[in-house]
Amino acid sequence: MANVFGNILKLSLFGESHSDAIGIVIDGLPAGLPVDMDAVQTEMERRAPGRNAFSTPRKEGDAPHIVSGLFNGKTTGTPLCAIIQNTNTRSKDYTPQLLRPSHADFTALCRYHGFSDYRGGGHFSGRLTAPLVFAGAILKSYLASQGIEIFAHIKSLKNHQDVAFDSVNPDKETYRKLKNEMLAVLNKEIATKMAETIESAKMVQDSVGGVIEALITGLPAGLGSPFFESVESRLAAMLFSVPAVKGVEFGSGFGITELLGSQANDPFCLKDGTVKTKTNHNGGINGGITNGMPLCFSVAVKPTPSISKPQETVNTETQKEETMEIHGRHDPCIVPRAVCVIEAAAAIVTADLLLEAKTYAEPASKRN
Amino acid sequence: MANVFGNILKLSLFGESHSDAIGIVIDGLPAGLPVDMDAVQTEMERRAPGRNAFSTPRKEGDAPHIVSGLFNGKTTGTPLCAIIQNTNTRSKDYTPQLLRPSHADFTALCRYHGFSDYRGGGHFSGRLTAPLVFAGAILKSYLASQGIEIFAHIKSLKNHQDVAFDSVNPDKETYRKLKNEMLAVLNKEIATKMAETIESAKMVQDSVGGVIEALITGLPAGLGSPFFESVESRLAAMLFSVPAVKGVEFGSGFGITELLGSQANDPFCLKDGTVKTKTNHNGGINGGITNGMPLCFSVAVKPTPSISKPQETVNTETQKEETMEIHGRHDPCIVPRAVCVIEAAAAIVTADLLLEAKTYAEPASKRN
Amino acid sequence: MANVFGNILKLSLFGESHSDAIGIVIDGLPAGLPVDMDAVQTEMERRAPGRNAFSTPRKEGDAPHIVSGLFNGKTTGTPLCAIIQNTNTRSKDYTPQLLRPSHADFTALCRYHGFSDYRGGGHFSGRLTAPLVFAGAILKSYLASQGIEIFAHIKSLKNHQDVAFDSVNPDKETYRKLKNEMLAVLNKEIATKMAETIESAKMVQDSVGGVIEALITGLPAGLGSPFFESVESRLAAMLFSVPAVKGVEFGSGFGITELLGSQANDPFCLKDGTVKTKTNHNGGINGGITNGMPLCFSVAVKPTPSISKPQETVNTETQKEETMEIHGRHDPCIVPRAVCVIEAAAAIVTADLLLEAKTYAEPASKRN
Amino acid sequence: MANVFGNILKLSLFGESHSDAIGIVIDGLPAGLPVDMDAVQTEMERRAPGRNAFSTPRKEGDAPHIVSGLFNGKTTGTPLCAIIQNTNTRSKDYTPQLLRPSHADFTALCRYHGFSDYRGGGHFSGRLTAPLVFAGAILKSYLASQGIEIFAHIKSLKNHQDVAFDSVNPDKETYRKLKNEMLAVLNKEIATKMAETIESAKMVQDSVGGVIEALITGLPAGLGSPFFESVESRLAAMLFSVPAVKGVEFGSGFGITELLGSQANDPFCLKDGTVKTKTNHNGGINGGITNGMPLCFSVAVKPTPSISKPQETVNTETQKEETMEIHGRHDPCIVPRAVCVIEAAAAIVTADLLLEAKTYAEPASKRN
Repeated sequence: MANVFGNILKLSLFGESHSDAIGIVIDGLPAGLPVDMDAVQTEMERRAPGRNAFSTPRKEGDAPHIVSGLFNGKTTGTPLCAIIQNTNTRSKDYTPQLLRPSHADFTALCRYHGFSDYRGGGHFSGRLTAPLVFAGAILKSYLASQGIEIFAHIKSLKNHQDVAFDSVNPDKETYRKLKNEMLAVLNKEIATKMAETIESAKMVQDSVGGVIEALITGLPAGLGSPFFESVESRLAAMLFSVPAVKGVEFGSGFGITELLGSQANDPFCLKDGTVKTKTNHNGGINGGITNGMPLCFSVAVKPTPSISKPQETVNTETQKEETMEIHGRHDPCIVPRAVCVIEAAAAIVTADLLLEAKTYAEPASKRN
Repeated sequence: MANVFGNILKLSLFGESHSDAIGIVIDGLPAGLPVDMDAVQTEMERRAPGRNAFSTPRKEGDAPHIVSGLFNGKTTGTPLCAIIQNTNTRSKDYTPQLLRPSHADFTALCRYHGFSDYRGGGHFSGRLTAPLVFAGAILKSYLASQGIEIFAHIKSLKNHQDVAFDSVNPDKETYRKLKNEMLAVLNKEIATKMAETIESAKMVQDSVGGVIEALITGLPAGLGSPFFESVESRLAAMLFSVPAVKGVEFGSGFGITELLGSQANDPFCLKDGTVKTKTNHNGGINGGITNGMPLCFSVAVKPTPSISKPQETVNTETQKEETMEIHGRHDPCIVPRAVCVIEAAAAIVTADLLLEAKTYAEPASKRN
Repeated sequence: MANVFGNILKLSLFGESHSDAIGIVIDGLPAGLPVDMDAVQTEMERRAPGRNAFSTPRKEGDAPHIVSGLFNGKTTGTPLCAIIQNTNTRSKDYTPQLLRPSHADFTALCRYHGFSDYRGGGHFSGRLTAPLVFAGAILKSYLASQGIEIFAHIKSLKNHQDVAFDSVNPDKETYRKLKNEMLAVLNKEIATKMAETIESAKMVQDSVGGVIEALITGLPAGLGSPFFESVESRLAAMLFSVPAVKGVEFGSGFGITELLGSQANDPFCLKDGTVKTKTNHNGGINGGITNGMPLCFSVAVKPTPSISKPQETVNTETQKEETMEIHGRHDPCIVPRAVCVIEAAAAIVTADLLLEAKTYAEPASKRN
Repeated sequence: MANVFGNILKLSLFGESHSDAIGIVIDGLPAGLPVDMDAVQTEMERRAPGRNAFSTPRKEGDAPHIVSGLFNGKTTGTPLCAIIQNTNTRSKDYTPQLLRPSHADFTALCRYHGFSDYRGGGHFSGRLTAPLVFAGAILKSYLASQGIEIFAHIKSLKNHQDVAFDSVNPDKETYRKLKNEMLAVLNKEIATKMAETIESAKMVQDSVGGVIEALITGLPAGLGSPFFESVESRLAAMLFSVPAVKGVEFGSGFGITELLGSQANDPFCLKDGTVKTKTNHNGGINGGITNGMPLCFSVAVKPTPSISKPQETVNTETQKEETMEIHGRHDPCIVPRAVCVIEAAAAIVTADLLLEAKTYAEPASKRN
């Protein structure tokens, strides 16, 4: 029930858009993990607003400050807490009585009986993904030390489709470069069209969404468990934590339902003496457990709900229907900034799975 | 890590296809809940094989026996354990060294170091969904007493689309009748085509998949929490526990990414003095919390991996590539039987959310 | 909130004194662990009633039947469920309206609103410790394979004190033999006096309690965590699960409060190149973490609440005070049978700690 | 495994003695709970050092700063994070290679492979109890609004015994005044002797311990659950989190083992139409569940391990035995300051139990 996630790693997320700070406590980290604050900052900036034409001009200065759990540049193994100050909160007039459509204003009102902090969306603010990105940055370096990498790109933006990742023979060198792109898209022509689409939406005070595809390479076979602790269950639980995500699919996902079994099944083969699959419709997961192929999934990110266009709503004070306009700085599309959030979410779950796998790594006796 | 699910309700699932029995322990049930074993049996039979032309002729006799937690026909509030005997397990020769494509044979081998029970898929068998259906049956009656109903139908089967549920003004009377159908489909002509498609796949030793759409009506606004405990996270974690599920989406799901924000946002309105939304692209959830609209989601179910067609695989004994054929009784399509499993999964999470909501139901002081 | 225990190992306990069966589901077991049913049965019989003059003559035949999670005599790694039938439940008249003093009759009534199974104490019955002993038996063999042993004896019975375990240089050979004793007591003269005390209590329809001391040898240093997951916290949580336990202390426990710091502190020394302590007032735990010395703790077991002597109580039906006599077969002292329950509780927690320690066993980088 | 505690309330503790700050995240708090920072500060000062002759002269200025989860002076219902700066950390030379006896130096070394922050005890510092006291202060006010109060006193200090609390008819007015005392002791003559004992220990560079007894009044009957979630299990798990606690007992605790069943059983009676017990040897708990009587428990607090007397130890650098002296400011007795920590620990668990009880408060149907 609480904002605590993970089996071995435990993450506690806190903060509101206009509270003093936001932050995260990460417990269960391996001791002795080097923390490269430059690498962390690079990830933070991938998420930060004001980075390009498609995002809000506000400069948040998302510089995480590590309060505990770090000693001589390495993790201590005890809880690591990082804080990000909320320095740039405008003191403006809020009208919490006007429920912003598709935002959490109404549900927060019901859930917290009117006591939640409504300023800037409060605890529901997309800004809370910054601590997730921080955690992801720490854990990506852990995963890298184990030979595991995470890639993501914009698979589609509105109706523009990028080429899909190759989840059988991933071109890691190319995918790695995506992290430096304004728009993480493989097909540069499509990228231009996507940029135009975002710009057009902005012009008409509207917004657009898209699909982000991610790939995790270097995973050993045998992570995860059947049923409630399936890799899909755990990744999906984290991915659906990210605001605006409305769909998650693995491998061919919804598309697999249009295939015949003979097409959807991934034939096994031997590659350098190791069991692999020839295709990867199952996204690297069978029976809830990784099979050693790249893990592949996609998430649907809805159009930014904050739009300046007039919208119909209810005024909870007057108890009357009303029309509202949402002013202020808002991304016409959060998909570009969400790419590294999705990577972070994947890194968190993957690291948790990897640590947990140590508990079932050695058989209690030899196989007969 | 373990097969334990839930915050207030705790479910422990156990058993293998060929062990003595399979079963479930449910803890955290409200005391005094009447258990109608006829209603339970009706649900069990919706899932049971051999019910129609599209499913395996085997008669499993899935009669759950309640071992504990029931007294005078009502739940005691202490752990309820139900056991389903495995009476009809054929003693046939198994060839665990031949990895069935898209099954868990290989991943189980890696995860459990060769010690897992491979007969009939062992713990990974779809048969393990029977205890889930049992739990769902118990909890559906609890939900019904709170005015909550769960509906599901086959939204698509291969490329045949049923009409979607109306998630704004659901026709509950019509949807209720779906439970008695062989194929839970609203459009009867489409149902016929789906039946033909399944039959055709069977003829050629192949299989097909589909999408199941579900609707939960009568939910109060305010269930769930932001981030890690979002309603989407919790439902998805359970839904991805169900074998063969490869995608989960809420409301318009992946489709929402092709809409503009002004189309995707659900305008608020007043209906009989209550705040509602005019559309329901968000599937009844904002910011991870229910908004009082029908909760709507879809899941992608892949084609049955067990097909008789020859398939390429690896023999782990000889460490050579080989061709295999899977014989025996297998559903050419598990989607029809999966409908009630998805309902059960939804019932479990909904009941857990509802119980948990009692802990945040009353404000600590009056709103100022 | 639920009857689920453990971090890596997850135990779900179920059943009532007069339900069809009682049992346990254990998840998270290492795969490939051999299960020796003879060894299991030996442990079950140590707990079973009717074993000697001090316990009830009833023969329960506590033969656990493993329903799942075992294949070819070894654990599969998937959930292991064991069931113990309730074969010998007398159908007698129960008077639930008469609250038995110091039993759970009244609290169960309040907690479960009158719906709990009151027959024979229902879910609160001491019989529910049988599945714990089963789990302990499985895990003791796992611990033994890691060089870890658990010993326990009756440290005191009413006012008779046995000699304490030597927690610095334990005489394991002697302690091992305690398992075969009717009364697990080191000083045989004291054992005789204890037996007489139990007999005397029985004669006057009364009962007695005692203290059980346990010792865990072979533990590596470094298990557990500070604060909420301290070894003391985890062991105590399990030990206080055992009915009738009213106190838990580690090392010198309450006695340590009468020492000066200079007496209570355990000086470090080197033994065969390994850091050890010269004394063991801290019971093998510093800062919540094992220090490689034998782990030593004691638990207080209250006198059996079921006594035939007339007792004052309240009749919930008439809402009047009344005098009651509890008839039937009851142990005048449960301490002798509780010895193996305490060992089992210790084995469960130790195994959980040991498995969890694998997740922090290897540093993320070399120490600088 | 992680520093996260609670079922409904989730507490995450972080920080080291010499990190920038220490703190806590509390999730699951009821929304709308007023937070009185003066009341919080009063509690903080009860724990703070330098308050009297018996504690270290250092002035820590434990002023918690609430970073999130508070709006308009009331809890929002979303995670509340409080930070306490570490302003007064002396930069002195540390000799981590000298293992302080009965401290966590050695176990931390093993557990965290040499990466933990050893300065001032790091994460193991008693200073980490300050955030617990903060959480306790918040929750005490919640409990007070429900009619629940928590009292604690020094039951014994070394061999000096205070009069015990009356756990049947508690004199709440008298007990309330204990919060303002330097030494929370009922018998003032004994208090003087205790003060002298502490002073004497200090003179000889030694330390003393004691027993703290606590009482929780106003609890409804029916909180908690049998077995793993017994009230004893949950309280003990939290109490053993507090550094230096080596024993926990409920009601008559270890003393109950010297009574006959007829003496130890608490007879039921009617008081103003409510079921109560005449005595309270079981400490207000039967079968793991509260019975509506005052909940009474005691904890053993060992003598401060930091003493200036020469002690034998091991130098991990030279791998030789050595004699060491611990210099610096150390309490000769932490028992007086631990009183409010124990109260806080009790408040946390009680609030968690109370919130959880809402999930089983209403029966699913009327009792038959």
